[in-house]
Amino acid sequence: MGAVHEALAALELVDHHCHGVTTGPLDRPGFEALLTEGGSWPEFSPFDTPAGVAVRRHCAPLLDLERHAPPDVYLARRAELGTREVNHRFLTAARTGVLCVDTGFTPLPLATPAELADAAGAVAHEVVRLEPVAEAVAARGVDAGGYADAFRAAALDAVRAPGVVGVKSVAAYRTGFDLDPARPSDAEVTRAARRWLGRGGGRLDEPVLIRHLLWTAVDLGLPLQLHTGFGDSDIRLHRVDPTLLTDWLHLTAGTIPVLLLHCWPYQRQAAYLAAVFEQVYLDVGLTLHHVGPVRARTVLEEALEITPFRKLLYSSDAYGVAEFYGLGALAFRRGLGDLLQDRVDADELSLPDALRLARWAAADNARRVYRLPDGH
Amino acid sequence: MGAVHEALAALELVDHHCHGVTTGPLDRPGFEALLTEGGSWPEFSPFDTPAGVAVRRHCAPLLDLERHAPPDVYLARRAELGTREVNHRFLTAARTGVLCVDTGFTPLPLATPAELADAAGAVAHEVVRLEPVAEAVAARGVDAGGYADAFRAAALDAVRAPGVVGVKSVAAYRTGFDLDPARPSDAEVTRAARRWLGRGGGRLDEPVLIRHLLWTAVDLGLPLQLHTGFGDSDIRLHRVDPTLLTDWLHLTAGTIPVLLLHCWPYQRQAAYLAAVFEQVYLDVGLTLHHVGPVRARTVLEEALEITPFRKLLYSSDAYGVAEFYGLGALAFRRGLGDLLQDRVDADELSLPDALRLARWAAADNARRVYRLPDGH
Amino acid sequence: MGAVHEALAALELVDHHCHGVTTGPLDRPGFEALLTEGGSWPEFSPFDTPAGVAVRRHCAPLLDLERHAPPDVYLARRAELGTREVNHRFLTAARTGVLCVDTGFTPLPLATPAELADAAGAVAHEVVRLEPVAEAVAARGVDAGGYADAFRAAALDAVRAPGVVGVKSVAAYRTGFDLDPARPSDAEVTRAARRWLGRGGGRLDEPVLIRHLLWTAVDLGLPLQLHTGFGDSDIRLHRVDPTLLTDWLHLTAGTIPVLLLHCWPYQRQAAYLAAVFEQVYLDVGLTLHHVGPVRARTVLEEALEITPFRKLLYSSDAYGVAEFYGLGALAFRRGLGDLLQDRVDADELSLPDALRLARWAAADNARRVYRLPDGH
Repeated sequence: MGAVHEALAALELVDHHCHGVTTGPLDRPGFEALLTEGGSWPEFSPFDTPAGVAVRRHCAPLLDLERHAPPDVYLARRAELGTREVNHRFLTAARTGVLCVDTGFTPLPLATPAELADAAGAVAHEVVRLEPVAEAVAARGVDAGGYADAFRAAALDAVRAPGVVGVKSVAAYRTGFDLDPARPSDAEVTRAARRWLGRGGGRLDEPVLIRHLLWTAVDLGLPLQLHTGFGDSDIRLHRVDPTLLTDWLHLTAGTIPVLLLHCWPYQRQAAYLAAVFEQVYLDVGLTLHHVGPVRARTVLEEALEITPFRKLLYSSDAYGVAEFYGLGALAFRRGLGDLLQDRVDADELSLPDALRLARWAAADNARRVYRLPDGH
Repeated sequence: MGAVHEALAALELVDHHCHGVTTGPLDRPGFEALLTEGGSWPEFSPFDTPAGVAVRRHCAPLLDLERHAPPDVYLARRAELGTREVNHRFLTAARTGVLCVDTGFTPLPLATPAELADAAGAVAHEVVRLEPVAEAVAARGVDAGGYADAFRAAALDAVRAPGVVGVKSVAAYRTGFDLDPARPSDAEVTRAARRWLGRGGGRLDEPVLIRHLLWTAVDLGLPLQLHTGFGDSDIRLHRVDPTLLTDWLHLTAGTIPVLLLHCWPYQRQAAYLAAVFEQVYLDVGLTLHHVGPVRARTVLEEALEITPFRKLLYSSDAYGVAEFYGLGALAFRRGLGDLLQDRVDADELSLPDALRLARWAAADNARRVYRLPDGH
Repeated sequence: MGAVHEALAALELVDHHCHGVTTGPLDRPGFEALLTEGGSWPEFSPFDTPAGVAVRRHCAPLLDLERHAPPDVYLARRAELGTREVNHRFLTAARTGVLCVDTGFTPLPLATPAELADAAGAVAHEVVRLEPVAEAVAARGVDAGGYADAFRAAALDAVRAPGVVGVKSVAAYRTGFDLDPARPSDAEVTRAARRWLGRGGGRLDEPVLIRHLLWTAVDLGLPLQLHTGFGDSDIRLHRVDPTLLTDWLHLTAGTIPVLLLHCWPYQRQAAYLAAVFEQVYLDVGLTLHHVGPVRARTVLEEALEITPFRKLLYSSDAYGVAEFYGLGALAFRRGLGDLLQDRVDADELSLPDALRLARWAAADNARRVYRLPDGH
């Protein structure tokens, strides 16, 4: 193992975007549903995917099983150990010092950031997802003319809670990025709110209100995470190429940091934005555990082709199963370590530069963007 | 040669999408025209391409020539052996057990599926290309109001012929995929048929009728092959990104299997669809022989980054020259074999899992989707 | 070092698209601004990028420094040697026999083609950028009805100057490629000129006039260079996918050669166009020095997946700092050399074929397209 791998192994990661983990027991269908971005397909097992193979290879040993343990053996051992122990093992194996937890997606009961931090031996911060804030405003009852103020007040309230370090939007899922980039006028927002509230509110997918939400994020002044690229079947992948945001990035230059999440298969497009817009950062979270350690390096190589070294962050985007915190961290450490070590070995990069780049991507870039206290 | 390569060498492939081979002699311009997706360019030889180099390297020895034989030597030997013998050599070298033949593209006289099967020592099934069925309906004479019924009847007739296992659409060539995804109303179809028939029918490129054709395919109930990505200059590549089909895939979920053909350079986009839609499958046919064995692995690696192992199929998309049946099979066996063997060697994948994935992609996935009888 | 590398080392490149180099001294901010396609960002050093690392690794030794010299040491030595000497060292290290210089982008004082040729020991030709020609016509004063003739006359004048071998358009920066492909009528051009001149002329970004400019290029009859893909933040990357030009390429087939510059991250899309349109050529200039030698091979591999060997050209797209002439040439020679040598070593390509492909891409393809005199 080279010096870069050793350094990365010793570094505590900052996972700048993840979700909670389930705390209850999972049967096979429950576990498999969390293993895939596809739905539940009776004829196909999610174990027969790159992510499934990676779980059997890299997670089984952490449950005291042989590598490549069969799914049933794996799940039996998982049940035997109990969710609490399993979560603890994977979360500590990830050696993540800081977790920034998106608490706005909870179709299942999940560990709170504090519980997650406890299981991981880490510090947890919170990232406020803005669409549920808007939807809650509608659910509590508001008239169209009062929506903008009510949403802003609710968002301000949410981000002033202790531990909040950023906000997130899933505009990608709601409208995609081929939006009018301009800040909507008050009248436009009122009209759009009237349409949305008039049909009972619910899932916020009104294009004008999504635009308004993105501009409200600018006003909040915190770093904004944007889902881009890969996701479940609700995504229209061709509408979430992050370069569709170029005009909006021009208009918002000089305001908030914008963190492009996931990005795959648009990691080169995201890299372009990070190279030409001061405020743009990126990660390849979610992708890392879905492609698995065997392909993480390639995805990282493409993401790093032109990305300034201050602009790459680590995230697992783990959700639901503790395995993904561990796999994401493993894929990142190994993928980045291999690519840097090979460059050092070929004398294309000095060792001090490689170590600095590793430290920055693994933790310091996130600390800087989110203004995290040192050691947290 | 590792265990995975040995297993792939021993497996008979199911080529789920190919065309017929020419049965007559080919002079140099005739052969070169079939070697490229470009047209005939007097100043450039199609031998000076990755596909041309691959033919000289990998096909020459099957004609008892040295590797890298010059084009003229290659073509002289080809003529000397005769088309029948040449076809037999390449088709048997491919070791394809089953051929699913698209019989709807015949600018040149081609071997019938039965002749192809005979030359290959294989079983042949038929795939009905739907656009020519519609065009024949117009050519036979139909009024606009009767078009929908007549097309449906003709398509039903065509798919009830013995040996038909699926249908195909070249919507990619006619309109691209940025179509209204909804099933068109009867009145819309009649109006569109009036426009099309009013200008004399011919090449079906009326967007409403292409939509109607795709929905008729749903009604037929057979697996639907869709050309996506790479093709000749009639393609508008930016309009054949398969993710443009997302809304249509939502609307047709739970109906027919959809097989995305070729995909390059959108293999990752296709993989996304295969990962999140139960009914979506993909191959990288056509691409394999055009990029050649030296790049087939990379294309397969990208295609497999997140594709469930039940969703990758093999096709050659060979057309015209027998060389491409052999080259496609070689590039697939070697590319998949190398990537799986390396994963086994790195202990990232167990050998039984690798062998299962190979068996599935090489043959079983196609057998399952097309409900092919065992051994056929 | 293999035979292919030796041959590439001995070959004088034809750099078919580059700019001038600064002739005055550069302080750290001035140098850093030229190192990046991003702007000047006080908190980030452009040395902390793949291009910055490549400069420290590969350019420092040419200034008699250790590999990986720190930025301040590098810039101090650069200042000590003086711009004239530095330019001479990098330009001769590139071993470029011919430079085709785009003289139409001069925010800074730059060396003329003759000065560049002198510093490089090369022959320089000129490429006329058409947008400034149009803008100068407006600046000199013209009425809307006379614009088309005046622009054509000015463009003809410009291309008849000694040493002009081609023209270039930055339509990518002005409108992107999702344009109506048809030649605009005289009346359309007049109306568009009225709009543009009415707001005072200046930056030409009127879609009809950009179209008209592209069609004027066709009339000029010289090879046309088109910026595609990667550039600074003025680019809307999703609008400069070269396949958006497909309809225009159909309409202009049989007229002028079209050279797609840069292309990244659309190198596969560009390769598709080069494979199916006789008149299309491509390079991966600009990209080569920004991704650096460690990734140049991958980008070239993708660019060459299906590109006919007569269709790949070399360009540095160097601008401003002499380092990029050297780095571009190094990345090209090493990237292409590695991929060809590996294919020869694996017996996938014969050595004579590899040497021919290298010679063509490095120089002969450009000589052929631009009809350069032999040895020039």
